[in-house]
Amino acid sequence: MGEFELIERFFKRPVRHAALGVGDDCALLNSAPGMQMAVSTDMLVQGRHFFPDVDPYTLGHKALAVNLSDLAACGARPLAFTLALALPEARSDWLEPFSRGLLDLADAHDCELIGGDTTQGPLNICITVFGEVPAGQALLRSGAQPGDDIYVSGSLGDAYLALQAMLGHITLPPTLLAATRQRMEQPTPRVALGLALRAVASAAADVSDGLLGDLGHILKQSSVGATVDTSVAMHLLAAYADPADVNGQFDQEQWMALALRCVLAGGDDYELVFTAPVSRRKDVAAAALQGDVPVTRLGRIDAAPGLRLVNADGAAVENRFASFDHFAERETVAGCSA
Amino acid sequence: MGEFELIERFFKRPVRHAALGVGDDCALLNSAPGMQMAVSTDMLVQGRHFFPDVDPYTLGHKALAVNLSDLAACGARPLAFTLALALPEARSDWLEPFSRGLLDLADAHDCELIGGDTTQGPLNICITVFGEVPAGQALLRSGAQPGDDIYVSGSLGDAYLALQAMLGHITLPPTLLAATRQRMEQPTPRVALGLALRAVASAAADVSDGLLGDLGHILKQSSVGATVDTSVAMHLLAAYADPADVNGQFDQEQWMALALRCVLAGGDDYELVFTAPVSRRKDVAAAALQGDVPVTRLGRIDAAPGLRLVNADGAAVENRFASFDHFAERETVAGCSA
Repeated sequence: MGEFELIERFFKRPVRHAALGVGDDCALLNSAPGMQMAVSTDMLVQGRHFFPDVDPYTLGHKALAVNLSDLAACGARPLAFTLALALPEARSDWLEPFSRGLLDLADAHDCELIGGDTTQGPLNICITVFGEVPAGQALLRSGAQPGDDIYVSGSLGDAYLALQAMLGHITLPPTLLAATRQRMEQPTPRVALGLALRAVASAAADVSDGLLGDLGHILKQSSVGATVDTSVAMHLLAAYADPADVNGQFDQEQWMALALRCVLAGGDDYELVFTAPVSRRKDVAAAALQGDVPVTRLGRIDAAPGLRLVNADGAAVENRFASFDHFAERETVAGCSA
Repeated sequence: MGEFELIERFFKRPVRHAALGVGDDCALLNSAPGMQMAVSTDMLVQGRHFFPDVDPYTLGHKALAVNLSDLAACGARPLAFTLALALPEARSDWLEPFSRGLLDLADAHDCELIGGDTTQGPLNICITVFGEVPAGQALLRSGAQPGDDIYVSGSLGDAYLALQAMLGHITLPPTLLAATRQRMEQPTPRVALGLALRAVASAAADVSDGLLGDLGHILKQSSVGATVDTSVAMHLLAAYADPADVNGQFDQEQWMALALRCVLAGGDDYELVFTAPVSRRKDVAAAALQGDVPVTRLGRIDAAPGLRLVNADGAAVENRFASFDHFAERETVAGCSA
């Protein structure tokens, strides 16, 4: 199968909204008056972002999901995307499910594939996504104000827990592994929540590198600090369980430390972390309904810089959680170093 | 050096036109009334598109140049680009010249870096570029009409000739190697020519996979055929020389066959191939002046499908030239199989 047949068979589809799709030197997008174009790009590399034997359908889903998550964090409505793909070889039995996973999610968000590039090389997937947002209404990282509440959508840490099991660092019962692995391999971009938060949230980011790291971006760009209640955060791990359920590998304290590590610094969650004034709590609840995902209030923005962790009694909890950095060594997981 | 320091040091710069640049979940581009956004993406892979020891400055230049060339082919004015970069390691002595080569060319075209992604992995550079064009005025591949002239800008085949020398298939004298290698490593995107051709050309494409292949895209999408004069095309090789100048490796016939192979199917040229009505020859000449690059008329569009090669007498020349396909085996180079 040649390069052009590959594109024709798996990726070329009629466009509904774009002025011109796959097949020319450029794609063409119409610009709507009063709107801004939101743009984000993410690259997924085998061995870094996914296992070599990952199901191609879920990989196609995830490659687009992580990009849609960036649009969600800005409150932008998805429009279109480009796909650049380096493949070791052009195999139909891989390309067919990959393109289906990709395009199923694209269709669910009415987001069109408008162009791309294919080349031979170590497996690498680079998607650039385009969305639109009314001028001046995008959710930015820089808008958090002292006194604002801090929220996060959905659950956190499950992807990281699954990763630890898949790397052989811990064992999980089959049902727990399946549930957490699903969260890792097929994350749900919170697009509807992002749209609903447009006039409500003061700042937002998506949680890709870990909650504390991504909240840290908001703090830095808003020149504020924050206090996060770890006793609330702890329960964001959907897989939170009795230590006995995780095959008795941990005592209560070890398991709680691992759960907290997963939630605060696991990453690969693709939930939204956002801030909103205390006066907007009802609007946040309404946005959560509209976005069809629960949101949890887990802290507040402070004028004093720095990120403070506290327990249910307000006592300080040591912050031993580094967020993910592609060029730094990762800390070992609490309770998993053996 | 961590991921965020890397971005901060080498790639984060204030934006002049975009509403928001590097540093948030998305970048934001303002949309101008009456304009369409032209989008293209290209991925460059080590060992496939460049040698492992390539000068990082020229690699930065080329990574953006091949994308700007797609905008040029559509007659779009460059606005902005995103950069996704997989790197084996974060080394300043590589990143500094790479970013300089990239941003020097970006500045020359007033094209802003607005966002991106960096990750650890086998070296891979994926750029997505954005340009604007008045709605309905983009140059497409689909507009060629029977009777139209066929033109190409600049010179063709030099990059491929350099590649053959660098692969050790032929030897070139040092000055010829330097000149052709410069064309391979630092191609000049024909942005000004593309803009000048907007109201003149009937169809256009950039020459990345080889003249005949890229002209073939125009023919297919315009549902027409073409006749190309190989005696004219031959002289598009800027490095065209007496066989004696290429160290006596070839007799006259072998050298001419190699030169023609380079010109017609070499690829990696980033010139424009375009068509225009015979009545617009003066306008094409004016566009070439405006674009500061010579253009050569080398054939005509036919109503009958198919691509015919002829010599100066109009006699048929066999077409033995395949264009580049990333998932097909490449033909061996005429005269170079030893």
